[in-house]
Amino acid sequence: MSIYLSDIPLADAQSRLIAALQEAGRWAILGVEDLPLDEYAAGRVLAEPAWARLSSPHYHASAMDGFAVRAHETIGAMPNAPVSLLFGSQTTYVDTGDALPVWADAVIPIENVEPLDEGNILAGNLRHPYKIQIRSSVVPWSHIRALGEDIVATQLVLPAGHTIRPIDIGALAASGYDRVRVTRRPRVAILPTGSELVPVGQPVKPGEIIEYNSLVLAAQINAWGGKAVRFPIIPDNFEEICEKVNEASQTSDLILLNAGSSAGSEDFSARVVEKLGKLLVHGVAVRPGHPVILGMVERKKPPVIPVQPSGLNDGSSPNGASQSLIPIIGVPGYPVSAALTAEIFVEPLLARWLGRQPHEPEIVRAVMTRKITSPAGDDDYVRVALGRVGDTLLAAPLARGAGVITSLVRADGIVVLPRGSQGVADGEEVAVRLYRSLPEIDRTILVIGSHDITLDLLAQYLAGCQRRLASANVGSLGGLIALRRGEAHLAGSHLLDIETGEYNLAYIRQYLPGISVKVIALVGRQQGLIINKGNPKGITSLKDLTRKDVVFVNRQRGAGTRVLLDYHLSRFAIASEKVQGYNHEEYTHLTVAAAVSSGKADCGLGIAAAAQALDLDFIPLFQERYDLVVPKHHYDSTLLAPLFQVLHDPAFQQAVAALPGYNVTMMGTLVAEVG
Amino acid sequence: MSIYLSDIPLADAQSRLIAALQEAGRWAILGVEDLPLDEYAAGRVLAEPAWARLSSPHYHASAMDGFAVRAHETIGAMPNAPVSLLFGSQTTYVDTGDALPVWADAVIPIENVEPLDEGNILAGNLRHPYKIQIRSSVVPWSHIRALGEDIVATQLVLPAGHTIRPIDIGALAASGYDRVRVTRRPRVAILPTGSELVPVGQPVKPGEIIEYNSLVLAAQINAWGGKAVRFPIIPDNFEEICEKVNEASQTSDLILLNAGSSAGSEDFSARVVEKLGKLLVHGVAVRPGHPVILGMVERKKPPVIPVQPSGLNDGSSPNGASQSLIPIIGVPGYPVSAALTAEIFVEPLLARWLGRQPHEPEIVRAVMTRKITSPAGDDDYVRVALGRVGDTLLAAPLARGAGVITSLVRADGIVVLPRGSQGVADGEEVAVRLYRSLPEIDRTILVIGSHDITLDLLAQYLAGCQRRLASANVGSLGGLIALRRGEAHLAGSHLLDIETGEYNLAYIRQYLPGISVKVIALVGRQQGLIINKGNPKGITSLKDLTRKDVVFVNRQRGAGTRVLLDYHLSRFAIASEKVQGYNHEEYTHLTVAAAVSSGKADCGLGIAAAAQALDLDFIPLFQERYDLVVPKHHYDSTLLAPLFQVLHDPAFQQAVAALPGYNVTMMGTLVAEVG
Repeated sequence: MSIYLSDIPLADAQSRLIAALQEAGRWAILGVEDLPLDEYAAGRVLAEPAWARLSSPHYHASAMDGFAVRAHETIGAMPNAPVSLLFGSQTTYVDTGDALPVWADAVIPIENVEPLDEGNILAGNLRHPYKIQIRSSVVPWSHIRALGEDIVATQLVLPAGHTIRPIDIGALAASGYDRVRVTRRPRVAILPTGSELVPVGQPVKPGEIIEYNSLVLAAQINAWGGKAVRFPIIPDNFEEICEKVNEASQTSDLILLNAGSSAGSEDFSARVVEKLGKLLVHGVAVRPGHPVILGMVERKKPPVIPVQPSGLNDGSSPNGASQSLIPIIGVPGYPVSAALTAEIFVEPLLARWLGRQPHEPEIVRAVMTRKITSPAGDDDYVRVALGRVGDTLLAAPLARGAGVITSLVRADGIVVLPRGSQGVADGEEVAVRLYRSLPEIDRTILVIGSHDITLDLLAQYLAGCQRRLASANVGSLGGLIALRRGEAHLAGSHLLDIETGEYNLAYIRQYLPGISVKVIALVGRQQGLIINKGNPKGITSLKDLTRKDVVFVNRQRGAGTRVLLDYHLSRFAIASEKVQGYNHEEYTHLTVAAAVSSGKADCGLGIAAAAQALDLDFIPLFQERYDLVVPKHHYDSTLLAPLFQVLHDPAFQQAVAALPGYNVTMMGTLVAEVG
Repeated sequence: MSIYLSDIPLADAQSRLIAALQEAGRWAILGVEDLPLDEYAAGRVLAEPAWARLSSPHYHASAMDGFAVRAHETIGAMPNAPVSLLFGSQTTYVDTGDALPVWADAVIPIENVEPLDEGNILAGNLRHPYKIQIRSSVVPWSHIRALGEDIVATQLVLPAGHTIRPIDIGALAASGYDRVRVTRRPRVAILPTGSELVPVGQPVKPGEIIEYNSLVLAAQINAWGGKAVRFPIIPDNFEEICEKVNEASQTSDLILLNAGSSAGSEDFSARVVEKLGKLLVHGVAVRPGHPVILGMVERKKPPVIPVQPSGLNDGSSPNGASQSLIPIIGVPGYPVSAALTAEIFVEPLLARWLGRQPHEPEIVRAVMTRKITSPAGDDDYVRVALGRVGDTLLAAPLARGAGVITSLVRADGIVVLPRGSQGVADGEEVAVRLYRSLPEIDRTILVIGSHDITLDLLAQYLAGCQRRLASANVGSLGGLIALRRGEAHLAGSHLLDIETGEYNLAYIRQYLPGISVKVIALVGRQQGLIINKGNPKGITSLKDLTRKDVVFVNRQRGAGTRVLLDYHLSRFAIASEKVQGYNHEEYTHLTVAAAVSSGKADCGLGIAAAAQALDLDFIPLFQERYDLVVPKHHYDSTLLAPLFQVLHDPAFQQAVAALPGYNVTMMGTLVAEVG
């Protein structure tokens, strides 16, 4: 049993897979389907070029409601010298789209015609006047859509490999198609494995993991034009996994075996592939995602293929032993790795099988806000949040962990640091593959600093006003520093000045010299001690922190809550060395609550909402103010205008006031202008 | 009966519709559905914000396969001074994702551990050594994914109005969701009307029109998140249309009445709306698309609404008389108008009903290649083809006609010339709303000049090489002039020099002074007379053109074929005045063939393929060469490289050789370098 994976470069891994697929006769479209041409053809890929079978228009058609004429008979018509044409022999009425009579070569729109037949006109019948009179001549082919004006039979309407859009359906119909030959959708089986997995909707215990990778993979595959089939969870049992892979191989074009792809004691995927076929790759030098397995497994029984009406070979019919090998990908278990592995390996494969181009992300240049180090041996996929501050498009790296699914949810793009690169300096320009459209990014408000749950509510309300709020949580002081560096539109801060008892202003003067800002109150909120349910240690005030049987959990330096703690410890003359756990630092209210919840600590200073979130108790101690610090040039921008409107929206204020420990009496008021 | 529409500005039309919808209580989401959280939730819109119900991880989890330890017991471990830990009391094995034991606060990855138990190691059992030995200490929380590291219960996971992407399904599952509340999909009835309409798949006679707008509209609506229901074609019968609108109103949220929206004698839509409800707008100052009708019609019976499991009001329950009005849009009949009307009026309405943001096209700046004039009173939607030639993104206006569906199929974007603008000068920069992604546009090869069907085949072959070929047909001379203006990557030309009998070179010297070009042979092809099937006039050579009973159809000045004709007329000493129809100019081989086919002319000069396309006969007369003229700086670009490869691809050569009148003996050879 091998413990270590041996990662190979991404390009090598891809080449090995392609070579194996070529050998197996599976590096081409899988088959052709003949569909009726209707709205459900949209999104499918043309298997053959569509050559026009019919011209459009397929006859000379009137382009207007009006009168068909011979152009030469209109010559000489002038405003003061009308020409009249006899109905029947010289002119006849045509509706838009009507075929032009063979003798006619132009149409005069009805509004340019004076009908000479009062009786018919009064009866509202303009189609059969006795005569018409015109006051300007027309040239041949006026107001006629000539045969083939749009499409001429035999011309190329759409090439093979084109993904059919709604308008294309019209063009195909216009050029004489009533059926359309498209490529068959690849069938992809997704097999979640792992004894620790629990299906969505069941209660979970510590150590159990909600199985959702299969849902994400299935949705990706369907979005890319495949047909996903999810299997039930398979426990970590070698024989059982083999059996299910065999079963899946009978009806699938590709098998995704999720997790078990690493080298742990219960990682069976590599052995399964080795047993059932050929292991091509175990480990790819890509982060996140490196424990990827690529292989081919034998299809045990002849596949069940639906009969094609066209009777064409759909590529699945057996033509030798190699045809019975189908690809299998061992997808890593961490959700970010799983989703990126699918993007890297599955999407291009589906594109090939569907006969379309692989997806090409749009690439933009952006400036990295923080230094990133990267293992030189790997292609490193760094998720970034994007925002335009002033004229600069900024890329802020998000959490790097392969398990942090929110890093992919929040990502506006990906920066790929290729093998050989050891990272990116802060301020360096990078190429970003976009996940969101630029218009969406351009209406993103970047808020940085101390996190408060009110910002989540604000994000929700702003979503209704064409604004997206993206927040980064770096603590109050970190927020002011980021603001100075031009990395956000505004900062959230609750820094108490110990000298004056005032919030934020002294810090702004110190950390934002020369920058004019407005300080807007967001909320007042209670800080207090987060304690276990029922207060088993009988804690009542900060003085209990010095007790031998009480373990505290602290916030990081620079956090407003840490400043608050230090201020009150000194007020009560409590030496920090006497507080057990004073050096145990957490970065958010909620991770402080989590430390209490898990028994790691007995109490921590934080907000009531954090205690409530984890069903803990709370001892209110202090009232503090949380402000938004906004540089003046952003304050006046149209981007931020909706934000200040929301602060005065009674519905928003009520929603915030309903949170435990919050008051909104000052919300939206200008506290100060500085600088 | 009103003949004339009275167009109102687009913004006014939109306001009237919104006001009527607000009054009817229909300017909000239509309802909420409670779905199981699985892959089919992708693409749906969240009806409510998703606040995390569970933290993720929901326990302190090991981030690696390895050994759980107390960090303080590892202090002092060094490469040359290992520390050993006793299995059971000081350490225990954990797989990635396992819950951390309560006493532990760090994990040491298995690869950093030396197990001290040879027996177990040889048996491959690394999980239960007697002791482990480590050679470096770890800090608390190493290789642990702390409770809430990714998501903390109560935080905002996704805002209401967010369209669920595959990865979001994972984040929702991770934060404790197993069902998801999404907005109801709006039901849109599409009613095609018109006695001239014939369903797709039936043979058509002149004057009959293939009904495909309903397919395009349905595909658009489904793509935008609605649920389209297509009705069968309704003849132009006022009562029958009323009846079907009534029927549709019972189950739909919106009715699209296609065509009959103008003011012609059989345009009933406005009267139908007036009879069944309220006509809000008849005519919008938008081109193409102006005969748009907006109105509200009464819902005659209580709607059949599926019961929602949530039991929530889905917005459809009657709460007063106003609730019984539903919107109806009279969509113009021309296909481009129909598709654009849907983009302008239907997409934003569906967005509102679904609770999502309307689609925001990406906007790029491009330089217009030709002057465009525009009616000052209208918002003018100009379809453009885009291509990057050198460093400049060029926008070439496509056919303006509302009936030219290929103009929308070929469009890479739309330039909207707002009311008040009278047009755009050539060379002016414009804002283009993109239909295709920039990466796709950047791999587009622009070819301009004389059209040849070989270019369609070339486009098909290039589609397989990540290149898109966009061609504009302006005649050989027009192509050279466009090349001089930097508007294309290459030009197609077959201009015979009368002096030398040589192709293209003299013209290149004259029209591309100072530009270095390579001239590459594309094909040799036969030019000849396109005549009616069976040659009823007994035409055999150009000499027959002077016969009294023979009518000719000519090509426009600057066309290679016109040059060829004039050359041979002078060779045969035939005076052009003696040729009936010499002044009747057509712009393509195929429209020449169409003129013959429709009886307008007896013959025209053109290529065999055009005759074959319209099932006509052909008298071959001359052999000519059609060349590609490529400026040297484009010739060497990676963009064009695949094109020259295709010219040497035997499969491509065979496909061209199979066309009537074509030979490929010189294909791809360098004819000359000029300049």
